[in-house]
Amino acid sequence: MEAYRALEKRFERLSHLEGVSQVLHWDRAVMMPPGGATARAGQQATLDVLAHEILVDPTTGDLLNEAEGEAASLDSWQAANFVEMRRRWRHATALPADLVEALTLKSAACEMAWREARAQNRFADVAPLLTDLLALVREKAQAKAAALGLGPYDALLDSYDPGTRSADVDRIFGELRSFLPGLIDRVVARQAALPVPLPLDGRITVPAQRKLARKLMKTVGFDTQFGRLDVSHHPFTCGVPDDVRITTRYTAGDFTESLMGVLHETGHALYERGRPAAWKNQPVGEARGMTIHESQSLLLEMQACRSREFVRFVSPLMREVFQGAGDAWSPANLERYYLKVERSLIRVEADEVTYPAHILLRYDLERALVTGGLQVTDLPGAWADGMKALLGVYVPGDALGCMQDIHWFGGDFGYFPTYTLGALAAAQLFQAAIRADGDVLPGIARGDFRPLLAWLGPNVHSVASRHSTQDILHNATGAPLGTAAFRAHVEARYLS
Amino acid sequence: MEAYRALEKRFERLSHLEGVSQVLHWDRAVMMPPGGATARAGQQATLDVLAHEILVDPTTGDLLNEAEGEAASLDSWQAANFVEMRRRWRHATALPADLVEALTLKSAACEMAWREARAQNRFADVAPLLTDLLALVREKAQAKAAALGLGPYDALLDSYDPGTRSADVDRIFGELRSFLPGLIDRVVARQAALPVPLPLDGRITVPAQRKLARKLMKTVGFDTQFGRLDVSHHPFTCGVPDDVRITTRYTAGDFTESLMGVLHETGHALYERGRPAAWKNQPVGEARGMTIHESQSLLLEMQACRSREFVRFVSPLMREVFQGAGDAWSPANLERYYLKVERSLIRVEADEVTYPAHILLRYDLERALVTGGLQVTDLPGAWADGMKALLGVYVPGDALGCMQDIHWFGGDFGYFPTYTLGALAAAQLFQAAIRADGDVLPGIARGDFRPLLAWLGPNVHSVASRHSTQDILHNATGAPLGTAAFRAHVEARYLS
Repeated sequence: MEAYRALEKRFERLSHLEGVSQVLHWDRAVMMPPGGATARAGQQATLDVLAHEILVDPTTGDLLNEAEGEAASLDSWQAANFVEMRRRWRHATALPADLVEALTLKSAACEMAWREARAQNRFADVAPLLTDLLALVREKAQAKAAALGLGPYDALLDSYDPGTRSADVDRIFGELRSFLPGLIDRVVARQAALPVPLPLDGRITVPAQRKLARKLMKTVGFDTQFGRLDVSHHPFTCGVPDDVRITTRYTAGDFTESLMGVLHETGHALYERGRPAAWKNQPVGEARGMTIHESQSLLLEMQACRSREFVRFVSPLMREVFQGAGDAWSPANLERYYLKVERSLIRVEADEVTYPAHILLRYDLERALVTGGLQVTDLPGAWADGMKALLGVYVPGDALGCMQDIHWFGGDFGYFPTYTLGALAAAQLFQAAIRADGDVLPGIARGDFRPLLAWLGPNVHSVASRHSTQDILHNATGAPLGTAAFRAHVEARYLS
Repeated sequence: MEAYRALEKRFERLSHLEGVSQVLHWDRAVMMPPGGATARAGQQATLDVLAHEILVDPTTGDLLNEAEGEAASLDSWQAANFVEMRRRWRHATALPADLVEALTLKSAACEMAWREARAQNRFADVAPLLTDLLALVREKAQAKAAALGLGPYDALLDSYDPGTRSADVDRIFGELRSFLPGLIDRVVARQAALPVPLPLDGRITVPAQRKLARKLMKTVGFDTQFGRLDVSHHPFTCGVPDDVRITTRYTAGDFTESLMGVLHETGHALYERGRPAAWKNQPVGEARGMTIHESQSLLLEMQACRSREFVRFVSPLMREVFQGAGDAWSPANLERYYLKVERSLIRVEADEVTYPAHILLRYDLERALVTGGLQVTDLPGAWADGMKALLGVYVPGDALGCMQDIHWFGGDFGYFPTYTLGALAAAQLFQAAIRADGDVLPGIARGDFRPLLAWLGPNVHSVASRHSTQDILHNATGAPLGTAAFRAHVEARYLS
């Protein structure tokens, strides 16, 4: 096992470099003074180049080939680890160095132009750069497709969610398309018939929100010995398993976004913490992919913490910390805020029922962009048409339309579907957890998440990347990923 | 200049890695949750190894040899940069890889044991590890001595303060030894004859201290666009020129340490910020060494900000922010706090008059330890004897004696003398600045540090590592580093 051991050392080094990048990323978003941006970009680029060089170094390829001969002596974790090493190496070596560099430079330029163009609501200002960037992304997709034996879009998808293929996405999203518009209609009509929720009076200060957020993080199982909560413009989770950093943002007077945001990120954080300590710095110990990662944040936020059980548990805490009084702070009234469904323009503000429609649109468009069926100049029109068809909303400008998300302008194509695959997986996993242990929901009702975590541990967290996304979900829920659990969840929560 | 240009690229990469290490160091001391320590140690070790590998890679040596042939075409900055590249390479290649690793491991183990041994006041618990570590340090000193053509102690000193030799230190410290004890006697006797200072009543809260600290940082020229102030257990400065992080610690009820601490670190920070932007990521653009660095913090703290002029400027601000009243907040009474001299056991709490005595002791002892004239088991006795002889104080235990500082237990021998060389340089530079520009002191009296910075810029900050420490000081002050300015300063401030 000499070659395999040498690979483990090499990948441990890569893992440490990735951990360093995580600290830098967190620091940039949370702590760094603005003047440090250029220096930080140079530091980050150096780390990226060094990591890439280690991976594509001919020695890595030689060791991988040698280690093939040692396969018989590897145990099942080591064998899975070896598969993941090979996968990473394939992705890295698929691209020539000059394409990697061109993509880095063009992405940075396009992202910068996008910020300005979005602020000015002028898509034309960023369209030429996006066109150039897309050409490079297509080149990347072709190169990866050739190396991985996949279609171009699947080759991109595979880097965010290993093993997920557009054929599966098409099947699952096809089901969604068939029932989602009708479901949205019914939920919106039902909510429209209800009286407006009572206003939440109280002292909803930022310190009070922070206090409650910390309390709830602890309730669901976050240990501040191994992580932090801070503030950033866009909430995120990053770090390493023993040092998980999550962020949120606070709005004085409105706690609904900050609290659910913290619980969402805590779901990510628990997955980071829960993977096997023994494989911490190896590829097999990493998160499986974005579908599983998002399933863990949405399971906690959408399934567990917007449940009737949790709202009942949390409403007296909210009333106390915000010094609220009266019926407005009853569980029933709070639910009205947490379960409000409306057709809207912005993905990141969408509720769980309309959210998949935003993703269906992006999936169609980005596939067409990558495969050449759609040109950048035609994007705004296609976006507006899609929003009309899927959600029935009018797009008043590209800033609220095709420029709202950073992904494409930063070169990320193939990422969007994982948000909805994650939402579907969350529903399916939560359903399975409840079936497996009758104390999961009663636990949540009393603020005890141990039964839920006791199920997620062996079924999801501690599997890490030992199995594929598909196998993890199948093993945990007894069925391949589908839409049934999600549909049943929405109907039960919003229509019964 | 192809080889030289290739070296610049290589050293830029090293500079970025060093910048990353700075962020990690800051984060560890200021932000990191305790559980992250092991992961962080792995990340830091990986960065150190990668940087070392880049430096000792045979290509670096080849390029240095090739670039010798290009010397004629280099301008003066490039030539100085090339000298610094060679110097770093010599230091790095002097040590075999196994010695570097052994030192890293043993230092970490000894430092950890030291924390416990100091807390328990049991030197015997750490003595065996310190003995082992010292053996490795001696090996290191021998190896560097051979590679650099220096004596063993000088070879260590050179890594903290390039170009400084113990022959110079002996001369300068010899002068100090001749007059310091008498000077301390006279100052202490004079202060003993004065009535005790009036107690500082007021609301000396931590937020009020923080507010004033930030205001004073701004007053002396720190720009928060390019840096931060935070809290850590031990104050320090780190970061990169466009992102300088300084820390302090606050004690409710006592602002004297926190405010002067912030001004001390701000002196370091201004040196970081003030070096030439064009050479930011090259060796010649780095800080010259610890003597110059410490001269900048002490010049700001001890020379400028404990001056009668500054105390007069700052006293109404203090009175206001701390809601003080009465004569206690007069400049004369505040000076009594800021200029208190007493013989004490602890270096980091010492005033500027007795501080050099602490260093004279450490210099003698560490040289004897490195060259073999003193064994670790004899250290506590030698320490107690030295404190008796130099300061006339009795050492009640090793925790307050030879275990008080981290340096030796972390493997740092040859660092201590730079504190006092820096103090002497600060006095000499400040004297020269005042002579060169009659508005320096009046500026400080009105809270305007621009005249001082206008002198420090060309004379110290922007020289970076283009000249040696010795040349920088000679060029700026017209004389080699000596004790005259320091002595004159102490006599003027404390005895007139």
